[in-house]
Amino acid sequence: MASSLDLKEATSSQSSWDTLLPDFPKGPLCKYRKKASFSWKEMAVFLDGEDIIQLKNRIFSALENDPVFAHHPGEDLSREKYQELTFLRCKRLFEYDFLSPQENAEKPLKILNVINCLGMYDWSPCLKYFLHCGIFAGTILSASKRFADFVKQVYSMEIFGCFALTELSHGTNTKGIRTTATFDSSTQEFIINTPDFEAAKFWVGNMGKNATHAAVYAQLYTPDGQCHGLHSFIVQIRDTKTLLPMPGVMVGDIGKKVGQNGLDNGFAMFHNVRIPKENILNVAGDVTAEGKYISSLKQWRLLPYLAATYVLDYFSKSLFENFVEFYAGLLTKQRSQRQADLGREIHALSAASKPLSSWTAQQAAQECREACGGHGYLAMNRLGEIRNDNDPNCTYEGDNNVLLQQTSNYLMSWMSCIREKAPFESPFGTVNFLQNYHHILGQKFTASSVEDCMDSSVPLAAYKWLVCYLLRESDLKLNKEKQSGQSDFEARNNCQVYYCRSLAIAFIEQTVLQRYHDYTHDPSMPSTLQPVLRNLSALYGLWSLSKHLAVLYQGGYVSGEQAGRFIQNAILELCYRLKNDAVALVDVFAPPDFILNSPIGKANGELYKNMWAEILQGSKALNRPSWWAEFCINKPVTGRLRSRL
Amino acid sequence: MASSLDLKEATSSQSSWDTLLPDFPKGPLCKYRKKASFSWKEMAVFLDGEDIIQLKNRIFSALENDPVFAHHPGEDLSREKYQELTFLRCKRLFEYDFLSPQENAEKPLKILNVINCLGMYDWSPCLKYFLHCGIFAGTILSASKRFADFVKQVYSMEIFGCFALTELSHGTNTKGIRTTATFDSSTQEFIINTPDFEAAKFWVGNMGKNATHAAVYAQLYTPDGQCHGLHSFIVQIRDTKTLLPMPGVMVGDIGKKVGQNGLDNGFAMFHNVRIPKENILNVAGDVTAEGKYISSLKQWRLLPYLAATYVLDYFSKSLFENFVEFYAGLLTKQRSQRQADLGREIHALSAASKPLSSWTAQQAAQECREACGGHGYLAMNRLGEIRNDNDPNCTYEGDNNVLLQQTSNYLMSWMSCIREKAPFESPFGTVNFLQNYHHILGQKFTASSVEDCMDSSVPLAAYKWLVCYLLRESDLKLNKEKQSGQSDFEARNNCQVYYCRSLAIAFIEQTVLQRYHDYTHDPSMPSTLQPVLRNLSALYGLWSLSKHLAVLYQGGYVSGEQAGRFIQNAILELCYRLKNDAVALVDVFAPPDFILNSPIGKANGELYKNMWAEILQGSKALNRPSWWAEFCINKPVTGRLRSRL
Repeated sequence: MASSLDLKEATSSQSSWDTLLPDFPKGPLCKYRKKASFSWKEMAVFLDGEDIIQLKNRIFSALENDPVFAHHPGEDLSREKYQELTFLRCKRLFEYDFLSPQENAEKPLKILNVINCLGMYDWSPCLKYFLHCGIFAGTILSASKRFADFVKQVYSMEIFGCFALTELSHGTNTKGIRTTATFDSSTQEFIINTPDFEAAKFWVGNMGKNATHAAVYAQLYTPDGQCHGLHSFIVQIRDTKTLLPMPGVMVGDIGKKVGQNGLDNGFAMFHNVRIPKENILNVAGDVTAEGKYISSLKQWRLLPYLAATYVLDYFSKSLFENFVEFYAGLLTKQRSQRQADLGREIHALSAASKPLSSWTAQQAAQECREACGGHGYLAMNRLGEIRNDNDPNCTYEGDNNVLLQQTSNYLMSWMSCIREKAPFESPFGTVNFLQNYHHILGQKFTASSVEDCMDSSVPLAAYKWLVCYLLRESDLKLNKEKQSGQSDFEARNNCQVYYCRSLAIAFIEQTVLQRYHDYTHDPSMPSTLQPVLRNLSALYGLWSLSKHLAVLYQGGYVSGEQAGRFIQNAILELCYRLKNDAVALVDVFAPPDFILNSPIGKANGELYKNMWAEILQGSKALNRPSWWAEFCINKPVTGRLRSRL
Repeated sequence: MASSLDLKEATSSQSSWDTLLPDFPKGPLCKYRKKASFSWKEMAVFLDGEDIIQLKNRIFSALENDPVFAHHPGEDLSREKYQELTFLRCKRLFEYDFLSPQENAEKPLKILNVINCLGMYDWSPCLKYFLHCGIFAGTILSASKRFADFVKQVYSMEIFGCFALTELSHGTNTKGIRTTATFDSSTQEFIINTPDFEAAKFWVGNMGKNATHAAVYAQLYTPDGQCHGLHSFIVQIRDTKTLLPMPGVMVGDIGKKVGQNGLDNGFAMFHNVRIPKENILNVAGDVTAEGKYISSLKQWRLLPYLAATYVLDYFSKSLFENFVEFYAGLLTKQRSQRQADLGREIHALSAASKPLSSWTAQQAAQECREACGGHGYLAMNRLGEIRNDNDPNCTYEGDNNVLLQQTSNYLMSWMSCIREKAPFESPFGTVNFLQNYHHILGQKFTASSVEDCMDSSVPLAAYKWLVCYLLRESDLKLNKEKQSGQSDFEARNNCQVYYCRSLAIAFIEQTVLQRYHDYTHDPSMPSTLQPVLRNLSALYGLWSLSKHLAVLYQGGYVSGEQAGRFIQNAILELCYRLKNDAVALVDVFAPPDFILNSPIGKANGELYKNMWAEILQGSKALNRPSWWAEFCINKPVTGRLRSRL
């Protein structure tokens, strides 16, 4: 009767799954759900286990049923209001107390799930809560058991904590921290001091409006003037009864960020603030002393985008001139073959150059954002806004991928001429090189040193081969698909990935590079400017080409270990050569400070001074939050709402 | 005396450059500026020409000196206020009238510069202005000269225009447009009608609050019921005296977006709105009828990220368990060699997995954003918020690139054991395979068909070779750098790009894949779930590996055209096989609707209904803007402020 038992078992697990994981509402997805090869409920139970799913359900339904966690659709929440809501939600997490210490100890994986569930709802209250109860309390607990009473106050929210390591002018480089803690043996106190505003504690979560206590990392000095390295100290920064700053502490909110705006990230400067000797936490052996291995890498990250700026700017102007010619024909109602050909060529060029430029801009903004570290994430520096404002360019007037298909269709339309070896040309000449298709396909990469690769003619020749190769591959693939009985529509679809899409990208990169190469190699170019512009041309060409290196190898244009290394080393060498020109190259393009409106990017280069000036402009940057009584007076009762779960 | 003349010329151009382009303020960038190989002023004049620079200066200083364009540092502008400011700024652009039609005709490139200058300040007023004066007026002008008087009203801002092509359920697919314009021969009118809310005009710039007239694209029907295809029509949507909607028009604001929130993007539905016959603009031959070639491509765009979700989720749990083991040792004050080794291995794994997972998440969010087209850009759908909230993970606790260096340092530290063929192992075993370093380096890619590649053992073997190869290359490069006299610090820096950085990434991808491969190939895995999870494992492995294909070719692990194609085709085949499981795979992971809080992502799949419900919740979505009199009564005098320029 094994099969009947199996069936019974299966039925019983099915019904327990249904209780745990109710069906989704009916709708247009039903038909897709039915196609699945497995039961999503079985999968969920297998991956998580029933106890974790129960925990998740408990958390999710608690949030959904609690008005404090209600969403505010269509409402334009101010940052101040959002910070208040985040605090109230954080307080609520004390009252739910989703995981008892015992549960946590039994199955540590549960805490990861709690964090994920809360984070999926909103990372701001989740981070606020765990910075306080996890990082702050954890730092203190692991230091010494004598802080046990203090930690109790953390868990009952009598006090609110933050972890103050990073400073304005150095984030991850903990060796560079300059806040000092000088021991005064006469009073048995430490004196905490911030030497100047570049050493202000900065980016500290919970510090902006809320924290009363900070675990402050500082260089310890003994009265003999000797430095004993980085240590951490508990420093009270706000009064627990009023949330007003303690004497000698200047503490405030660093302002709007690109995201996570519910969390109050803050700054603090200490003016000879005295704390009792007992407040020292530890020898900071647990702070990883990371090196400062960044600067040379940054140049490599950003210089290719600087080159792309020059190359694409030139291309957009030249394409605009092509367009003016075309438009003049439209206005004068030209009906010639040339006018029609102009239209097709312009369409093919613009359909592919929009994806190229919008993606390049998107990646450049993201790379700049990351290269600036936390400061790139401050809204005032506008890298987020620049990225977000550029973003619709990737979908406007047609999704980038759809547009690329139009360019590849244009290119494929020349295949019959190529096959029949019939002569052809396009009005702007961008496809004329395809007449040498067969000859080009027989070429190879011939550079035999890094120096050989330093001119854009090298990537340009490679690009011509690449376009011909991808054209041949796309054509073969399309014919194969059609022969297998696919409709023209399906066949074209199936050729997109790895074939037509790559073809369109390679073609537009080739065209862009060709125009810039011709421009920078024109004898009329001033000799004072030609070297740097040629370097930009070569860097852009090689950098773009290097993303296609696999295809160059695959198709046999490039072979052997050395060739790839030459290209990579040439990119690095060009970055090195352009390093000294980088600021001046930016100066040429940079809009005035008023227009750019980014303290980190001002022409004076005084980023920290600029940022401070702007932070202190922040309305209410230094003010006590309007909701202070919600912290100071209305304390949560830990676990009060557990019974509701 | 040629040289003296040259000198005189140079001096005179230098001084004319200085007038045109004043020096930057002194500051910390001075020393970098001095290093440049060229004069940035000469470059700027060469690239743009003096007349364009003068035009830019004129625009930039007009904006900077006009209080309407003042920035609001530290202020939390509401979207309503920002829209008002954007309108006032747009009105100001009429008054400046930066480019006369004559100047425009003389040098069309100038208009491109005007747009760029205004856009650098803020794209919202710039788009608002050019959608009205450029796109809307241009559409009408190019249709027929009989609209000349109407266009005058556009330029004097008596009316305000928008270009209403896209509809809620189809963006670029213009063939799918369903708004109708039915000719009524008895009254000689067209009747404009929106059949249902999925056919509402949507995303239309200027329509949200401001436009009085729209160029509406609709299918033309004659009384005999025949459809004559897409045409465009001028439809009045708001009263020019009151900005209240015209009878039969439901028009409103689509709500907050990821960026460009000064621009009022809107929607409109028409309930049998009658317009005079004369309002037909054109046979829509200029509307590109784009195909609907998207769906199969989307699956390819998103499925690898779905696979990455499963694989990385498993890895994070297994790494967390490793960490618990390590932490238990810490709490019990273990001082063994094993505890120290655990610490090093965990640090190496976590330092590289944070970059891998934060970048993957960032790219996945961006890819989802783009795959959803415009709707992904609506703030309510939360793809922007998810991306922005994840973003700090790329810099928190150390910049990703700095972290990767720590992992590569760990790997490089085993080279002496490898060289001396001394046995070694790490507590979690992640580096044990390096003991076979020499053997692995001799291996080759052996798959001889697509089918051969469909198991994750294939990419896994390739990854092992890749890690060994990059380790060897990094080691060679480091020794070379050191031999050339670089300090240890500099030598390590110079090895990062293309060597140590790639090594760390390849290593962590290999480790992640190894763990998931073992997991999905374990005999205890339920047979109902194993096939789909193995497909995910293979897809993730091949997709990640394909980014390293160039190195695989370069180092000779892979050779010939076929190998690369096998890998690419295996990725496509796995995407195809996983297609039917995609929704169920998402169902397993998806948080409840309340938590996700994204109309486009609700479990019922009714994205358009969900979006409408939320849009209409928008406070004041349908309201007249508070600043209506600024449009209806205070009209700009075109060119009034030209004299100030």
